[in-house]
Amino acid sequence: FALEAHTHSKMLNQELLTLENPVFCCYIFWATVLVVKMLLMSLLTALQRFRYKIFPNEEDLFFKNIEVQFDDPHVERVRRAHRNDMENILPYFIMSLIYICTNPTEAVACNLFRVAAVARILHTLVYAVYPVPQPARIIAFATMMLITFYMAAVVALRTLSFI
Amino acid sequence: FALEAHTHSKMLNQELLTLENPVFCCYIFWATVLVVKMLLMSLLTALQRFRYKIFPNEEDLFFKNIEVQFDDPHVERVRRAHRNDMENILPYFIMSLIYICTNPTEAVACNLFRVAAVARILHTLVYAVYPVPQPARIIAFATMMLITFYMAAVVALRTLSFI
Amino acid sequence: FALEAHTHSKMLNQELLTLENPVFCCYIFWATVLVVKMLLMSLLTALQRFRYKIFPNEEDLFFKNIEVQFDDPHVERVRRAHRNDMENILPYFIMSLIYICTNPTEAVACNLFRVAAVARILHTLVYAVYPVPQPARIIAFATMMLITFYMAAVVALRTLSFI
Repeated sequence: FALEAHTHSKMLNQELLTLENPVFCCYIFWATVLVVKMLLMSLLTALQRFRYKIFPNEEDLFFKNIEVQFDDPHVERVRRAHRNDMENILPYFIMSLIYICTNPTEAVACNLFRVAAVARILHTLVYAVYPVPQPARIIAFATMMLITFYMAAVVALRTLSFI
Repeated sequence: FALEAHTHSKMLNQELLTLENPVFCCYIFWATVLVVKMLLMSLLTALQRFRYKIFPNEEDLFFKNIEVQFDDPHVERVRRAHRNDMENILPYFIMSLIYICTNPTEAVACNLFRVAAVARILHTLVYAVYPVPQPARIIAFATMMLITFYMAAVVALRTLSFI
Repeated sequence: FALEAHTHSKMLNQELLTLENPVFCCYIFWATVLVVKMLLMSLLTALQRFRYKIFPNEEDLFFKNIEVQFDDPHVERVRRAHRNDMENILPYFIMSLIYICTNPTEAVACNLFRVAAVARILHTLVYAVYPVPQPARIIAFATMMLITFYMAAVVALRTLSFI
């Protein structure tokens, strides 16, 4: 029995970062959604650049009689939202991948992934697509940040002896 | 035979993120190339700052009789290229790592990694090193983006039930 | 004996990205520290925005009689430090994760993780919290960069045949 338990625990440990682990599958799905969401920010920026004819490089002047221009509010708003994505989602990707390695409860982990991803989609909507009054954006922003802090606390407590 | 096949499939699954998987080795090599390429952007920015004596902080004024300065076109061009790297290559790192976990065909996956990495090296050359007319940069940019979207589609279809 | 050695080597390879590998545990701990450090930059930026009443969006004007404003030196200094974190720490996360897969010596790898993390904490202190004369920041910056280049060299040499 002891041997069996040991084998079982070892197996679980080895398979945490595979499709056999439903927590990892859930992470994979929502991470993919967020990657696509982030790449769409580049296309949204491009859309704004063409709509308002604001280009930052000489070689990008696709229309006649225009010059390079910066600091257009419509373009810059999307770029701020995109930068905010990089500041928050990219560290979250690493943090949640690490968190999975601590073998968290499936229900807790999967719901954190879902809430975090939906929060960031809402963040983009209220920031870059259709600006609404605060605190809509602050709440969406804080949701993923608090989830990341929670995962960090779980992981740090578990690995504190390796400092 | 059934047992053997099962063992084989399980082994593959467990070993996807190890040096025993040639797809992972290929990913590792080209991800390393892209990491080095990204870090070199910092050095290229520093080079431009020293060449044109453009420094954004008081403590960086390494020459006499100069003041902090921003918005120099030579420096900003490199910084835009660097930001574009972060926007595209960093999500790609996560996306392709996840994609490997779906156990893709070796030839397809390895060639995607190669094409994506070469495209981003060309992107840097035509953006930050020696600007050339469009659509050179757009093509280089779109190549990695389309590859990332393809990987996202493969992964999302595979893990859709974990939504 | 040959079988035993083979089993042992295979086991090590499979368990590199699990909590059974002390190198991975050490990476996990210090990556978590750096993720938290990066997220705190967002809060530090927000603190500076409220202290100097500098807000970039209409919907963020939390005080009466103020307008959107950019380019405040106190806010921009923190944002530059934050951007520098993204440029260096995010590629380092991927690079060191990959480096672990090459099964490095425990003492070397763990100390690299420790030095890199402490260097970036010092970088933030001398850049964004309490600016000090150079070369303090350059040294802190170069430390993680050189560590990342070292890991890149180890990995690239090991996987060069998969080019």
